[in-house]
Amino acid sequence: MQPDFQSPELRHQTGLRLRRVVDGMASTGLDTLLLADNANVFYMSGRYYRGYVYVTRTGKCIYFIIHPDIFAPADNVVSIRKPEQIPSELTRMGIDLPHVVGLEYDALSYSEVSRLAKVFGEAVSADCSGVMRGARMVKTPYEIELMRIDGVHQSAVYERIGRLYRRDMTDLEFQVEIERALRLEGCLGYTRVAGRLMEINMGSVISGDNADVPSPYDFAMGGAGQSPSLPGGADGMTMKHGTTVMVDMNGNFNGYQTDMTRVWSVGEISEEALKAHECSRRILRALERETLPGVEIRSLYDRAMEIVREEGLERYFMGHNRQVAFIGHGVGIELNEQPAITARCRQIVEEGMTLALEPKFVIPGTGAVGVENTYVVRADGLECLTVCPEEIKSLI
Amino acid sequence: MQPDFQSPELRHQTGLRLRRVVDGMASTGLDTLLLADNANVFYMSGRYYRGYVYVTRTGKCIYFIIHPDIFAPADNVVSIRKPEQIPSELTRMGIDLPHVVGLEYDALSYSEVSRLAKVFGEAVSADCSGVMRGARMVKTPYEIELMRIDGVHQSAVYERIGRLYRRDMTDLEFQVEIERALRLEGCLGYTRVAGRLMEINMGSVISGDNADVPSPYDFAMGGAGQSPSLPGGADGMTMKHGTTVMVDMNGNFNGYQTDMTRVWSVGEISEEALKAHECSRRILRALERETLPGVEIRSLYDRAMEIVREEGLERYFMGHNRQVAFIGHGVGIELNEQPAITARCRQIVEEGMTLALEPKFVIPGTGAVGVENTYVVRADGLECLTVCPEEIKSLI
Repeated sequence: MQPDFQSPELRHQTGLRLRRVVDGMASTGLDTLLLADNANVFYMSGRYYRGYVYVTRTGKCIYFIIHPDIFAPADNVVSIRKPEQIPSELTRMGIDLPHVVGLEYDALSYSEVSRLAKVFGEAVSADCSGVMRGARMVKTPYEIELMRIDGVHQSAVYERIGRLYRRDMTDLEFQVEIERALRLEGCLGYTRVAGRLMEINMGSVISGDNADVPSPYDFAMGGAGQSPSLPGGADGMTMKHGTTVMVDMNGNFNGYQTDMTRVWSVGEISEEALKAHECSRRILRALERETLPGVEIRSLYDRAMEIVREEGLERYFMGHNRQVAFIGHGVGIELNEQPAITARCRQIVEEGMTLALEPKFVIPGTGAVGVENTYVVRADGLECLTVCPEEIKSLI
Repeated sequence: MQPDFQSPELRHQTGLRLRRVVDGMASTGLDTLLLADNANVFYMSGRYYRGYVYVTRTGKCIYFIIHPDIFAPADNVVSIRKPEQIPSELTRMGIDLPHVVGLEYDALSYSEVSRLAKVFGEAVSADCSGVMRGARMVKTPYEIELMRIDGVHQSAVYERIGRLYRRDMTDLEFQVEIERALRLEGCLGYTRVAGRLMEINMGSVISGDNADVPSPYDFAMGGAGQSPSLPGGADGMTMKHGTTVMVDMNGNFNGYQTDMTRVWSVGEISEEALKAHECSRRILRALERETLPGVEIRSLYDRAMEIVREEGLERYFMGHNRQVAFIGHGVGIELNEQPAITARCRQIVEEGMTLALEPKFVIPGTGAVGVENTYVVRADGLECLTVCPEEIKSLI
């Protein structure tokens, strides 16, 4: 478990990510970054550790660590007790102190940023959230490979979900069996999300009209949840004949994650629901072809809306009692990475982006339908990482 | 699922918590608080919602909500789209604007605090993290009742854990079966923690020498984990004859949580391990009697160390390869509440505090031993909320 920062392979892999970060700094006034956010520490080093990553505009990367016992020694690994020791350690190493240091204003607490901003005395601090989000938005081949592995495992479990159903199960009982299957497959059981607007356990299983109960979280779908302390997802009611159950569970097997949704039914469901589900698949097929490098992200949203309108399903798209204004999002270390696929997004599709596309519908009286896949953007369109049948199968 | 803020019962329950917060403001220069942290929103309202809680020094409490559709209307519930609308809404309601507004510097991001600090223009902002931690540290009878219910459910599952073992199981397979049992008992499967120094799925199951692998997280025990992205807890190795397995799993059934650890063995274990386990129980029995209102928290730590030294077990206490310098912590909505029970803690024991005491040992070659219970401080000592046999039983 001791990563060796001297190993050629790890140096190469973290080097490619480091280059993305350094390139991202070029268009800013930042000459260094001091990173501490757990997701960014993992991104820069290949593991989570307690401490800091110091990145210079010239591409130097120093790992300052609080607990030296979890690391193999290396010339870019420095043990400290507190961040205030960083300047003297840099001076000792012959590295210039920053003029403008980038700190993670969006990811760290006000208290922690305020403390870190004082570490370098005269140096001015500025927000580096955008630099890190931009770097992480486009994945390196190694990151894509980790997500491909996620997709293989997540799909393998989803293939078996139908067999986990027993008559008169509640949505929660069904969810618990899916959680167990995912965990036995190697899922870490931890959903890393950015910010505080999404709290979730291992995912969302929503059945029947619970799909139409609004939730305060920033997820595509709602659900009442089990408790007003965590008001989203399954509510513990028995899954009823003639309704759907939408499964959108965790795909984190290695620190990166895929995001994937499939739908099952209990017996036959309404024509309207089947039609909406096919509309979701039609949207995905169109976007798989048309999501090419250079295209505007917002055009993906517009294209989805165009198909929804053609089918006359606007009233049910991305919710019914409450509708949300996105059809997908970036995914990687965190579930909610850039870009957010909305009508207002100003970003451009780039090769190597990993996108979760989730055109979903809520049909009153039936429940949620639609498919979510995680894709990687290639030169000729989207490659699906979550390959698994998309049809609605009945559980009984 | 729609909480009615006019209901006498909810007004009474949130009123008691509100009084603790307002009392805590008295010794500060704050005349209002603007709260947004998920845990604090749940504390102040009885549910999580997206929005803000505005609290005045005179005891007014206004709920500003982003999604009106999840609330029953009430005279202290105001729908907004963004926090910048709060001042004009307050003026409309005839409520004075603040001179010094307390914001959650420890819980909210730098970006979010900076935005909220601008909302009131001239008003100066200051940190209210201490006010909220202090208020939440001592529980109201209703909160204690919720934690008592957690303890009943968590203990009911722990009583059945021995039956979940199968020969040659890995620690992870064992953990997954415990997770399933907890979830079917009603556990929310979500561990709410404050800050970024602890990341965890549904808890920690550590077996044999994995207990001696240091982790970067702020937990009492370590473990390599399944992935360098989440380096704590079970590592997937088969549980071996002559070793222990320590189970420290989630007790969140309603938004509050109990924290509880028990140990099992695979066959017979060393005398040293059994002795250390009994030492842990001896510490708990002493602290159950001696933790009286008015006593210094640090004296609990000192008392535990005194017993450990008497038994000559210092080398193994609270870790072996790495030792941590606390024996317990407050617990409630979050796993890591005040006080931290350390030698340096300056807080005083108060009636109604809920404390998780976890004197644990790591015995090389055997694994972790010790007991953790969650207690509520009563006038005559500690009342245990996690009543369950404490002896080490063999799984085979």
